[in-house]
Amino acid sequence: MDEGKWVSMDLNELDSKRISSQNAVHFNPFDVEMTTDNEHREDPPEPPLDALEGESRNYSFVSGLVWRGSESHNAQRVFAKYDDFHTIDWLRDNAMDRQRHRRFNQAKKQSSLDWLRSGMDASSAWICVFLVGLACGVCASVLDIGTAWLIDLRDGVCSKGFWFNREQCCWGSNQTTFDGQYECPQWMTWSVILGHLPNDAGAYVIQYLMFVVWAVIFSWMAATLVRVFAPYASGSGIPEIKTILSGFIIRGYLGKWTLLIKIISLIFIVSSGVNVGKEGPMIHIAACCGNFFAYLFPKYGNNEAKKREIHSAAAAAGISVAFGAPIAGVLFSLEEISYYFPLKTLYRSFFCALVAAFVVRSINPFGNDHLTMFFVEVRSPWFFLELIPFIFLGVFGGVIGVVFIRLNAWFCKLRKTTRLGQYPIMEVVAMGFVTALISYPNPYTREDNSSLIARLFHDCGPADNSALCDYNRTYTSVTAAFAKAEPGPGVKQAMWQLFLAVIVKFVLSIMSVGMKIPAGVFIPNMVVGAMVGRMVGVGMEQLSTTYSEAALFVTACGTTARCVTPGLYAVIGAAAVMGGVTRITISMVVIMVEVTGGLQYIVPLMAAVMTSKWVGDILMKEGIYELLINMNGYPFLDNKLDFHHTTVAADVMRPRPTEKDPLWALPQDSMTVEELEHVVHSGPNGFPIVVSRENQYLVGFVLRKELQVALEASRHPNSGIVSSSRVYFVEHCTTNDYIGPKPLVLSSMVDYAPITIIDQTPMETVIDLFRKMGLRQTLVTHKGRLLGIITKKDVLKHIKEMDHVDSGSVGFN
Amino acid sequence: MDEGKWVSMDLNELDSKRISSQNAVHFNPFDVEMTTDNEHREDPPEPPLDALEGESRNYSFVSGLVWRGSESHNAQRVFAKYDDFHTIDWLRDNAMDRQRHRRFNQAKKQSSLDWLRSGMDASSAWICVFLVGLACGVCASVLDIGTAWLIDLRDGVCSKGFWFNREQCCWGSNQTTFDGQYECPQWMTWSVILGHLPNDAGAYVIQYLMFVVWAVIFSWMAATLVRVFAPYASGSGIPEIKTILSGFIIRGYLGKWTLLIKIISLIFIVSSGVNVGKEGPMIHIAACCGNFFAYLFPKYGNNEAKKREIHSAAAAAGISVAFGAPIAGVLFSLEEISYYFPLKTLYRSFFCALVAAFVVRSINPFGNDHLTMFFVEVRSPWFFLELIPFIFLGVFGGVIGVVFIRLNAWFCKLRKTTRLGQYPIMEVVAMGFVTALISYPNPYTREDNSSLIARLFHDCGPADNSALCDYNRTYTSVTAAFAKAEPGPGVKQAMWQLFLAVIVKFVLSIMSVGMKIPAGVFIPNMVVGAMVGRMVGVGMEQLSTTYSEAALFVTACGTTARCVTPGLYAVIGAAAVMGGVTRITISMVVIMVEVTGGLQYIVPLMAAVMTSKWVGDILMKEGIYELLINMNGYPFLDNKLDFHHTTVAADVMRPRPTEKDPLWALPQDSMTVEELEHVVHSGPNGFPIVVSRENQYLVGFVLRKELQVALEASRHPNSGIVSSSRVYFVEHCTTNDYIGPKPLVLSSMVDYAPITIIDQTPMETVIDLFRKMGLRQTLVTHKGRLLGIITKKDVLKHIKEMDHVDSGSVGFN
Repeated sequence: MDEGKWVSMDLNELDSKRISSQNAVHFNPFDVEMTTDNEHREDPPEPPLDALEGESRNYSFVSGLVWRGSESHNAQRVFAKYDDFHTIDWLRDNAMDRQRHRRFNQAKKQSSLDWLRSGMDASSAWICVFLVGLACGVCASVLDIGTAWLIDLRDGVCSKGFWFNREQCCWGSNQTTFDGQYECPQWMTWSVILGHLPNDAGAYVIQYLMFVVWAVIFSWMAATLVRVFAPYASGSGIPEIKTILSGFIIRGYLGKWTLLIKIISLIFIVSSGVNVGKEGPMIHIAACCGNFFAYLFPKYGNNEAKKREIHSAAAAAGISVAFGAPIAGVLFSLEEISYYFPLKTLYRSFFCALVAAFVVRSINPFGNDHLTMFFVEVRSPWFFLELIPFIFLGVFGGVIGVVFIRLNAWFCKLRKTTRLGQYPIMEVVAMGFVTALISYPNPYTREDNSSLIARLFHDCGPADNSALCDYNRTYTSVTAAFAKAEPGPGVKQAMWQLFLAVIVKFVLSIMSVGMKIPAGVFIPNMVVGAMVGRMVGVGMEQLSTTYSEAALFVTACGTTARCVTPGLYAVIGAAAVMGGVTRITISMVVIMVEVTGGLQYIVPLMAAVMTSKWVGDILMKEGIYELLINMNGYPFLDNKLDFHHTTVAADVMRPRPTEKDPLWALPQDSMTVEELEHVVHSGPNGFPIVVSRENQYLVGFVLRKELQVALEASRHPNSGIVSSSRVYFVEHCTTNDYIGPKPLVLSSMVDYAPITIIDQTPMETVIDLFRKMGLRQTLVTHKGRLLGIITKKDVLKHIKEMDHVDSGSVGFN
Repeated sequence: MDEGKWVSMDLNELDSKRISSQNAVHFNPFDVEMTTDNEHREDPPEPPLDALEGESRNYSFVSGLVWRGSESHNAQRVFAKYDDFHTIDWLRDNAMDRQRHRRFNQAKKQSSLDWLRSGMDASSAWICVFLVGLACGVCASVLDIGTAWLIDLRDGVCSKGFWFNREQCCWGSNQTTFDGQYECPQWMTWSVILGHLPNDAGAYVIQYLMFVVWAVIFSWMAATLVRVFAPYASGSGIPEIKTILSGFIIRGYLGKWTLLIKIISLIFIVSSGVNVGKEGPMIHIAACCGNFFAYLFPKYGNNEAKKREIHSAAAAAGISVAFGAPIAGVLFSLEEISYYFPLKTLYRSFFCALVAAFVVRSINPFGNDHLTMFFVEVRSPWFFLELIPFIFLGVFGGVIGVVFIRLNAWFCKLRKTTRLGQYPIMEVVAMGFVTALISYPNPYTREDNSSLIARLFHDCGPADNSALCDYNRTYTSVTAAFAKAEPGPGVKQAMWQLFLAVIVKFVLSIMSVGMKIPAGVFIPNMVVGAMVGRMVGVGMEQLSTTYSEAALFVTACGTTARCVTPGLYAVIGAAAVMGGVTRITISMVVIMVEVTGGLQYIVPLMAAVMTSKWVGDILMKEGIYELLINMNGYPFLDNKLDFHHTTVAADVMRPRPTEKDPLWALPQDSMTVEELEHVVHSGPNGFPIVVSRENQYLVGFVLRKELQVALEASRHPNSGIVSSSRVYFVEHCTTNDYIGPKPLVLSSMVDYAPITIIDQTPMETVIDLFRKMGLRQTLVTHKGRLLGIITKKDVLKHIKEMDHVDSGSVGFN
């Protein structure tokens, strides 16, 4: 295969060589007008996820062509953009990036402007992640400030100005209420505005009423915004982002419009009290920011594979700002979200997460100097035997996590199959109404989740007079191993209220997560875990004080005044339940460490989270994100999956050896344009090119979409191409003295180095190849002869078949 | 290719079918006696690294055969073990593990005992890393306790018993000296023993003398132990472990003997005062522990690829115990050490690191309740403008790191080329002598590195009366923005001493690292960075107090009494210099966070470490470990490396298209035993198998070593194989009526699914394949026809050629 003619061809020369010397029309990328950036455009608000069928879809919007050189001897190769709901080919995109890089490197030597441009290009990654970090920080701050304001609006307004929240309104006064809330004359509750005193029975009714009214308004706003403007804004977005990062195109999912609506409706829905979290959606918001800024840099905007590096960094920033935990953000992106995570991306993710955290800290929505969300001041040590209740909490977390996943999935199916799903806005409003109605009487359900978690994590100080800390402590006897901590009536009442709150919150979260609103599962599950943990902690504390003379506690606690910290149990419980639901471990531990600032609690946290993951894995193989991916049929090839079957490539490839299906291979030089058009019309997404029909040795691979574009262009009257023109997929025609109509030479769009495997390759290796190399398809050969093709979809179907799952649910290419 | 005959063959049936029905001798693995475990055996103490040449070595110790089934239709395939200094084939080992896993799964259904065994097998990874963690913790504790004892022995002995160190000796008494050292009558310095008073001039001389004498004795012990018993124990071991984890065999490098000698000599050399660290070697020690326990589990002991998962976890435990930083340990293993790091390994590494840290904490060598090595109590906030000195420290760290690397490399070369290298023990003893002689007069060089770092990190408390904290503070005026901190004479003197100490320590560490002793670069560089950082911090503090009225400081510091913390600068400086030397970032930041407990210093640490890495990368592409790997010519295919050349597989494969070299391909059924013997004798390490000499379409791949074993076995008089016997590499002979001597059927050792690539595949993709799939070789085809072969060594050579580096230095297979 001599390709010498194109060896030294420069990009600039290409135009002048449009008609090659051999009386052939070389298809040239610049014949086709570059269309505008389709990817950046928003989708119409109708959600197409369910409507579209994989391969039977027509290729209606063949979009702009991206020029790209193949690697082989600098020959030019033409590439079309990816279609919506298609899988990307990492190898192809990486090659495209290398070519671009090389062009910059060559240009660098030419002028100082080019040198500067090349420098800009080299640093664009860092600039991009810096901007993404900034944007994430700002979004998170807006979200936090907006939520704080609206939550307080349900209670009253500030007389200094309605835009102040309660804390800002009472900034100067140091008065706090029984619950630790700020209190001042400037802050007027709705009952006060309507002329009632705070302790009045009528005041309670008015406050209750306003609480419910605002909940209905807010939930209606949230649901309507999502329904009308951006259906993609619903849910946490994590399963979709995982799928996108694994190399799939969902246009508009990370668009500006989705970003805007997601933030606004998230503020409303969280403020309405509906039991959903805002931490998971932060990852979606961050990814949208990442997508926006990636388009400012052609290096990332035009290259789907490279763009995913920015998305990985953005996901890290998302968790970083959601919890104020930059290290955990990076680990979460690595452990749960990202697919391809080289060290380069690790550095950038870390940088991005730090910038984002720094912005949030500067804008300071958490209201203290610490970077952490639920900063826990008390750092009491824990003793070895406490590992038993910690591991119990882990078991509980694993079980409750599976219960949550199963019930939530069942409820989601109910929503899809019954009439419930036909009224998404009504459902949300009803949920808002019911939640508010049930929540108000119990202080632990009334409070918003974040401050409740903070309260549960905090340990009781001596001056703390909330119900949870209503102990009759005796600090008189210094020599006694323990100060007696007799619980007052407040504690007993708090325990009851907590118990009821656990049930209410758990049931509400099962029904709320999955509605057509932005909704995360982090916080609703954390709060359940924290409440249960706190109850266990109070129990343990009572145990240790009641039996303070028992050898067990004397050995463990020594002369420490108090050796069981209920707050720590709340932290462990929250981590355990989260671990059970999401099955993340390291990042979960690091999130809790960063959130509480308690580096010395790594061991108990790890024990609980690991137990929770093990128990969860035994009861149910998938975490909630994997389940949602499977339920939606996204083409996600799980990195963590172990494939243990004995099948080989020959069992998976199409056509199967036993079937009569034709192999869609194109001969390299013996087809007419008419034949090609017919094949392109009815064939699969890509075609292997072989030496000839009789001699099926592999030459290369070409994508249908690119052939379509080329055939369209060749239809130009001036091109001289007719239906009987011969099509050449190789550079040099084999016969120089060929007589007939002008041939169409398509060598510029052929990949002459597709990845091939031998038919006896075990499927484990094939799956590994797909995962690690990011393939879209691979060609199967036997003794050099082409046998078939395996696409990513075939692999996914095969995995599901082998696991006896309905393989029809893999719905996309 | 019909392989039906072997489809349903069970492992147990194999023996009875030794002679197949076709009058052919199938080579059978069980004909060859399983030799004892060669890998576990220690190497003779002569270091073979320099003596061995890659391909020209003879295969003298063909070791035991491991049975293994190929994936293709359950056919049996035979495998030999790897030779020393050879590259492993991850695909092959992974396939072997899957086969083993499948066997267990089948057996599970048969009896409850098998079910139990299968359960044991499934949990063996966790049990193994648990044991590794335990062992690492114990080793680290022994190391810490031993070092503390020997360091104090240089000062004096305890009258209660010579095995007590100073702290243990004076446990009850709370007296501490000026330097924070424990002091009590039970502790007798050498001068007291010899009848001098502590403040005597003679006492100083005696203490000085004893200091030097012990240094000489300790350094002699360390050097002799390494020289005589375990040459592999020298150095930090990190470059070698990186190479081993990337898939290379160095027998004995992780052996029990190396482990033992490394620990003992490390105790001696660190106690002698020679300026080397014990943190880097901890990774080697941990990896040795990992290797030891891996052999207890056949799953890991018999499978080189799986064993590396344990090594990765062990490396995490190593850093975890070295710094008391479990999260950083995992990240270090991920960022710097490991090659293949799936999530499964991440979980296990974390578990292993935690167990190890927990053991150290329980044995408690750091003497406090915190898990951290240099716990910093004071948590003063930092202000934005301090980022300027922090970034300056980053620049300094980057520059000093490169200076260190370059000078150290130059000195190592000097050692190799001059007579210096001929007296390794003398060199160490001389270094011990000189170090002690120079170090004693200056308190900052006299002190051991770990406690010096702790001192520099600690901020000055009000009661602190060491020279560094000799301030005349006035706390009278409460309203003043700053308490004046007038430095006393102690601070000025300390600055001078620190300045001299920086120079002395830096020069000594350059000459010490690289000698034939266990030696890490972490601590020597950390101490230099910490000293410089502390000096900068004191300078900044003076600046802020002198110009306390300046708008800059008033805005930044507000009413805070002291807003610049010199201790923080020491932390940042230490991280920056370490970052410059090793080029690790995330793990460096997390190490410092875990070491100091200062979660709020992530941003300044990151700023400094990132700057340091950038500056370092600009000045010199490689960090110290990469440089050492290159200098030693290890076959390490760097994960981080970007390859930007336009070469394709055809340019790298052997034979080159332009050369006249023969392609060593074996025809599948037309060779005699004699011909095969000749080819095996003179050919390369592996042979592709093709259809016939004329028709070079690829059938499979076979390793030379396995052919050798098979040929040896076939020489058995009863086998009926003669020199003219036909060799078949396929299961079914093509001619059933073949007349002649009994054929030799070797189909059981052929890999029928080798990874192939097309000749036009860009080298970037090929390198990616090698890295991600862990290939040992790949076969190059063109239109189905075999063209050549690319081995890992070819790839490494090509990378060096393209970077214009001497490619002869890649010395191994």
